[in-house]
Amino acid sequence: MKKTLGILGGMGPLATADLYRKIVLLTRADSDNEHIRVYIDGNARIPDRTAAILSGGADPMPEMRSSLRHLELCGADCIIMPCNTAHYYLPRLQAETEIPFISMLTETAKTCARAHPGETACILATRGTLASGLYENALSKEGVSFFLPGEGQRDVLMYAIYDCVKGGRPLDAAREPMKGLLRDLRAKGADYFVLGCTELPIAVRELALEGPFVDSTVELAKAAIRFCGYEVNE
Amino acid sequence: MKKTLGILGGMGPLATADLYRKIVLLTRADSDNEHIRVYIDGNARIPDRTAAILSGGADPMPEMRSSLRHLELCGADCIIMPCNTAHYYLPRLQAETEIPFISMLTETAKTCARAHPGETACILATRGTLASGLYENALSKEGVSFFLPGEGQRDVLMYAIYDCVKGGRPLDAAREPMKGLLRDLRAKGADYFVLGCTELPIAVRELALEGPFVDSTVELAKAAIRFCGYEVNE
Repeated sequence: MKKTLGILGGMGPLATADLYRKIVLLTRADSDNEHIRVYIDGNARIPDRTAAILSGGADPMPEMRSSLRHLELCGADCIIMPCNTAHYYLPRLQAETEIPFISMLTETAKTCARAHPGETACILATRGTLASGLYENALSKEGVSFFLPGEGQRDVLMYAIYDCVKGGRPLDAAREPMKGLLRDLRAKGADYFVLGCTELPIAVRELALEGPFVDSTVELAKAAIRFCGYEVNE
Repeated sequence: MKKTLGILGGMGPLATADLYRKIVLLTRADSDNEHIRVYIDGNARIPDRTAAILSGGADPMPEMRSSLRHLELCGADCIIMPCNTAHYYLPRLQAETEIPFISMLTETAKTCARAHPGETACILATRGTLASGLYENALSKEGVSFFLPGEGQRDVLMYAIYDCVKGGRPLDAAREPMKGLLRDLRAKGADYFVLGCTELPIAVRELALEGPFVDSTVELAKAAIRFCGYEVNE
């Protein structure tokens, strides 16, 4: 029996649209009716996760809970969140529902271990994700070796994520800083990069940046397709 | 007070993702929280609309009704459908709910009248949309002069829409047939083209085809943004 998919989204909206597009393109299907039924609450009202984790910003839980209730009303068989930082709240959300969540971080870490054995990753993510230790835990469980960007490098990532993609501004301004960031991290020993924020695959594609990358949005899409009983287009 | 938007989608799934992306990009916003809250039922189970209209295919109404109920449960303030052919069922769906639908065809026709006064449109759409007279009615109401593609030209459109975009196959095979189609229609007097099927903007972008075009997905996105109380990025 094919399952339906719930997306607790809006964090941010463009990343949610990117995830839905990737799910459609990665599903093996010859017609509309061979695709997954997907419920999305693109809840743009959810307060910023990084601000809540790091600097006492508004608690995202009430709005996340509102979206969870909507996905339950629709009858979603599983739930995914196209926001890495939001996974800080996943244990609390999971405790409030019988519907299983699929973790973007766990899926990404598994792919790192399988596709890059013995190599060293650098995690590109928001300050909230980096400070929370979410990726450190997920990658350590899979035995993946990794390091984190330095302080100034985090500023570059926050600029690309917040000012450019979330802010809806032209991405060109982020091109040279992002290129320099990747070059410096390669020099420091990164064999590949984890796109551990769902705005980053959008920036990487628009700016045609060179990896290798592991895209957390793609990994989540593939895991959700398989969970729902569909085949992945490899 | 800002309103929320319901998308009765999945017809097809890639077109629904394209609409959501366009809504996000066309909304004037500097952060996640300045975007519209969007509920989507990407209901890939809705039977094909053209098959139902033209050749006794399964009735799409029961599955469309199921999606309508989900959007009601979420509390959507208005509903849009990113499928032109599905608008054949709009009067029946509207009769079943208090939530107002915004018609993609009405919005597109208004833009044709405003942006192309005195010019002649050619309507590019599915056989179902063309046979139903949906665009003929909408454009006539706005005083827009237009003509429809011929039989062989409809085959080219159906190939691009069904075999390529909905079928998930490489679009390259549609490049020369689509270029020839546009050239022939220009020679027959088309000053511009209405992309009257939501798979067509995807094909046009991927194949970098030359218009001028009026994109029904963009027109619907703009109307929804304004209805919800947000500003359009022009």
